[in-house]
Amino acid sequence: MEDFHLCPKFESAFELIGKRWTGLIIRVLLNGPKRFKDMTEIITNVSSKVLTERLKELETAGIVSRVVYPEMPVRIEYCLSEKGKDLLPVLDELQKWADKWVE
Amino acid sequence: MEDFHLCPKFESAFELIGKRWTGLIIRVLLNGPKRFKDMTEIITNVSSKVLTERLKELETAGIVSRVVYPEMPVRIEYCLSEKGKDLLPVLDELQKWADKWVE
Repeated sequence: MEDFHLCPKFESAFELIGKRWTGLIIRVLLNGPKRFKDMTEIITNVSSKVLTERLKELETAGIVSRVVYPEMPVRIEYCLSEKGKDLLPVLDELQKWADKWVE
Repeated sequence: MEDFHLCPKFESAFELIGKRWTGLIIRVLLNGPKRFKDMTEIITNVSSKVLTERLKELETAGIVSRVVYPEMPVRIEYCLSEKGKDLLPVLDELQKWADKWVE
């Protein structure tokens, strides 16, 4: 009927970044690498359990990297991969839409 | 710490359009008004029950309009409101990202 051959990619992208908190996590990491504790201070309503889950999912998807600095004490930071940084235009457009339409 | 005063709008936009099938439904309706049956033929994996639910949610959110044509037999079509059509740039950017990064 119509050309929807790109559906599977589109749909799986939506499933990935459409999960609760995921968009917000990506947006926070677009501002630079963060430690787990920093993220819980910025995204105040998310539980540590859920934040851990989401970060693992994003790591598996190749969107977030977990970097361990061998200092004393060990420092662990989360940052976006190139794949993750490439989501900026998507989030920008969504922000524009939300500013215009969401009350 | 950082300027995240737009979080609530952004987050609620994500919650709304991030639900399974919702992005795809909006994308299909961007191509023009559709009857329920048309949509089930294009989005082949969605059940009628879930499609009905999603359309109701989108109607409540003011993104989709349900238009009843008083013909015999009655014709019912779903189309996007201005708010819904404004999602085009978001979906376009997401498509670009998916084409580049989703295998």
